[in-house]
Amino acid sequence: MKMTAIISEYNPFHNGHLYQAKIAREETEADLIVAIMSGTFMQRGEPAFSDKWTRARAAVASGEIDLVLELPFYFSVQRADRFAQGGVTIAEMIGATSLSFGSECGDITPFLLAASEKNEETPAYQRLVKEGLSNGLSSATAASQAFHALTTTLDLTTPNNTLGYYYARAASSISLHTTKRIGSGYHDLSVGDIMSATAIRAHYDETHQLTGLPQESASVLQGATFASFDHYYPFIRNRLLSTPLGVLTQFNGIDASLAPRLVEGARYSSTFDDFMTFIKTRRYTRTSLQRALIYLLTSTMTEEIDSVAFDQIDYVRPLAFNDKGRQALRQIKKQIRVISTFEAHPWLIKESQVTAAYAIPLARYDQLEEHRRFAHFSGSSSK
Amino acid sequence: MKMTAIISEYNPFHNGHLYQAKIAREETEADLIVAIMSGTFMQRGEPAFSDKWTRARAAVASGEIDLVLELPFYFSVQRADRFAQGGVTIAEMIGATSLSFGSECGDITPFLLAASEKNEETPAYQRLVKEGLSNGLSSATAASQAFHALTTTLDLTTPNNTLGYYYARAASSISLHTTKRIGSGYHDLSVGDIMSATAIRAHYDETHQLTGLPQESASVLQGATFASFDHYYPFIRNRLLSTPLGVLTQFNGIDASLAPRLVEGARYSSTFDDFMTFIKTRRYTRTSLQRALIYLLTSTMTEEIDSVAFDQIDYVRPLAFNDKGRQALRQIKKQIRVISTFEAHPWLIKESQVTAAYAIPLARYDQLEEHRRFAHFSGSSSK
Repeated sequence: MKMTAIISEYNPFHNGHLYQAKIAREETEADLIVAIMSGTFMQRGEPAFSDKWTRARAAVASGEIDLVLELPFYFSVQRADRFAQGGVTIAEMIGATSLSFGSECGDITPFLLAASEKNEETPAYQRLVKEGLSNGLSSATAASQAFHALTTTLDLTTPNNTLGYYYARAASSISLHTTKRIGSGYHDLSVGDIMSATAIRAHYDETHQLTGLPQESASVLQGATFASFDHYYPFIRNRLLSTPLGVLTQFNGIDASLAPRLVEGARYSSTFDDFMTFIKTRRYTRTSLQRALIYLLTSTMTEEIDSVAFDQIDYVRPLAFNDKGRQALRQIKKQIRVISTFEAHPWLIKESQVTAAYAIPLARYDQLEEHRRFAHFSGSSSK
Repeated sequence: MKMTAIISEYNPFHNGHLYQAKIAREETEADLIVAIMSGTFMQRGEPAFSDKWTRARAAVASGEIDLVLELPFYFSVQRADRFAQGGVTIAEMIGATSLSFGSECGDITPFLLAASEKNEETPAYQRLVKEGLSNGLSSATAASQAFHALTTTLDLTTPNNTLGYYYARAASSISLHTTKRIGSGYHDLSVGDIMSATAIRAHYDETHQLTGLPQESASVLQGATFASFDHYYPFIRNRLLSTPLGVLTQFNGIDASLAPRLVEGARYSSTFDDFMTFIKTRRYTRTSLQRALIYLLTSTMTEEIDSVAFDQIDYVRPLAFNDKGRQALRQIKKQIRVISTFEAHPWLIKESQVTAAYAIPLARYDQLEEHRRFAHFSGSSSK
C-alpha cells in the first residue's frame, strides 16, 4: 500500500488543496493520501477557522484525502523549520513513500539543491543574520533575509517555497515531490474558482458564504462555528492586563522588551485590530506576535517548550479517515502507536488544554472536548 | 477633627450601613466618618456587585460617610484576621480616634475580653485545630471551630462578631465601639426596610430593582453595571482548562489536591453554579474556593502573596469624599502619603491588574481603568 503524505493546515480544505492532492496521487502513483494536518492553532499563530475534527472531515469528504493525522500543537504553532520537521518525521514514521507539497517553484530540483547547500551552517549566514539584527530586524526576518541572500537556487521569499525547503532539509528516507501552486497566491484575496484559504476566510467574514471549496467539503463545514481573533481578544486582554510582567515573560515568545509593549497595547486597544496595529513593529512581525499571544492564551511557558523532546514522536492520532484510510491505519499500527481515543499522553493533555483555550471563547467547549472526541470515519461500517 | 473609622465592603451601601454610621457618629461624637472599603473583590472572594468608585460614591451620597479610602486587594480578599488587620492599621495610621463596627453582640466588652484571652495562642487551641483537620475539616473551619469552643465570652459563629474579634485583636491605639446590627442577618434573604447586602443583590438579580438603599445611594448606583460570578466563569474556566497542573498550583489558594478537582469541575460544568456544586466539599468551603478562583482570575500567585510586606502600608487612596472628607484628607496628608491619581506603587499596579480582571468580562475596561480614575468629590468646588 503506497502512501503519499501531505503536510497541511486545511484552514479550510479548498479547491487548490483538492487539485494538489489529485496531482500528487497521480504523479506519485499513490494508493492513498495521508494528510498530516495542524490542529487547533495554525502555524502563523492563528486560531483555526473551524475546529480540527470538522476540518479533517471536510478534507476526507472531498474524496481525495483518505486519512488525516494530527500535527501536534508543539510543532504546529512554530517557525517553518520545526513545523516541517514535525510533519516530515510523522510522514516517515508511518511509512509514507512520498511527501508532496505545493510550491511557487513547482520543480523539486532547486529544493534538493538548496537543502544540500546547508547555507544556515555557513559563517556568511551568521554574519548576515547579525547584520540584520543590528539593523533592528526580528530574528525570524533576519534569518530569512540572510538565507535568501545566500540561496540563489530557490526563491525563498515565498511561504510555500520556504516550507518546501525545510521539508527537504528534514527528509531522510522519504521521496519528495512538488506541484506548482495554481490560482491565487497565499495572501492573495481575489475571488475565483481557486482561492487561497486566506481569501476564503475573508470572503466568509464579509458575506457569510463559503466559496472555493469542493461541494462535499463545504457541506461538512456548513453550520460549523468559525473562529477569529476577535473571539479571543477579551481573554488575551484579561491575561495581559492581570498578569505581573515577571510572570508574562515566562510565556513562550514574550521577552522582557515585548511584555510591557503588549500590556500597553492591551490598555489602549479595545479591538484586536487596534491592538495589533499598536504592538506591531519591524522587530516583532505579526506572525511572531500572534504566536506569542497563542502561547499566552494556552498557558504555554518557555520552560514547557524547552522541555519537550521534539525528536520523540511516539504516536499518531487520526482525526478523520475513509475506508482506505482505515486500511492504512492497520498498516501504520505496525510501525507506531495509533491513539484514537483520549489517553493521558503528555502531548494529548496539551492538545486538550489547547482545544479548551480555543473552544471556551466560542462557547463550544462541550462539543469540542478532547476526552469525548474520536476520529471521524466516513465509509462502510464493516470492519 | 475627630474621625471615626468603619471597615466596610458597602456591596452595596444600604439602610443598615446608614443606620450604623449614624449611631457611630452620635456615640463616638465624631466630626466625620471615614470608611475603609474593600475595592474590586470582596472578602469572601466575590466580585464586587458594582465597581469600587461607584460604591464609594453611593456611600458618600448617603450623607453619612464623609470619606472612603480603599482597603488594598492584598487585605480585602483574605481571611478575617488579615482583612481586619489591614483595616485597623489604616484607621490608626490616618489618626482615627474610634473604630466602629456592627456586630450581632452589640456590646464591646466581650470583644475586648475575648481578644485579651489570645485563645489562638494556647496549646488547647492547637490541639483542637489538629483534631478538626484530622476529621476532614478545612483549616479555616477547623480554626474557627477550635476558637469558638475556647472563646466562651463571645459567640464567634456569627460573621460580624468574628470580624469584631479580629478588630479588637489588631487594635493598639484606637478606641473600639460596636453597634448592634438591626434588621436582617448577614445571610438573611428577607425583604424589608433593612435588608442585608446579600438580600439586596439577590433581589436585584431577580427583579432588576434596587431596594433597601438610601434614596441618594440608589440614584448613584442606577445605571451601573452589576457583576456576578457568571460573568467570570468563562474566563476562570479558560484558565483552569488551559493551564498545566504544575502551574495551577502556583496560584494562591490552589494546592495539589485542589487543582485536579478544579480542572475536573471545569470540564463537566458549563455554569458557575454547577461548577461550585461540583467542587465544594467539607474540606473546601465556598469562601475559600471563591478566593482561590479570584486569585487565579487575577493571576495572583502564592509567591506574590508571600512577598507582600503586609505591615508596610505606606499610602492611603481616597475613592470618594465630600467637603468634610476633603478637610480630613488635608489632616491625613500630614500622617501618611495620600495617593489620589495613579502612581506606579506596586500595590496600585496590583489594583490595576485586579480591576482589569474585573472589568474585561463586563466589557467595561475603558471606563474602569485605574490610570484614568480619580477619587470622586461631591461637595462645593471651592478649595
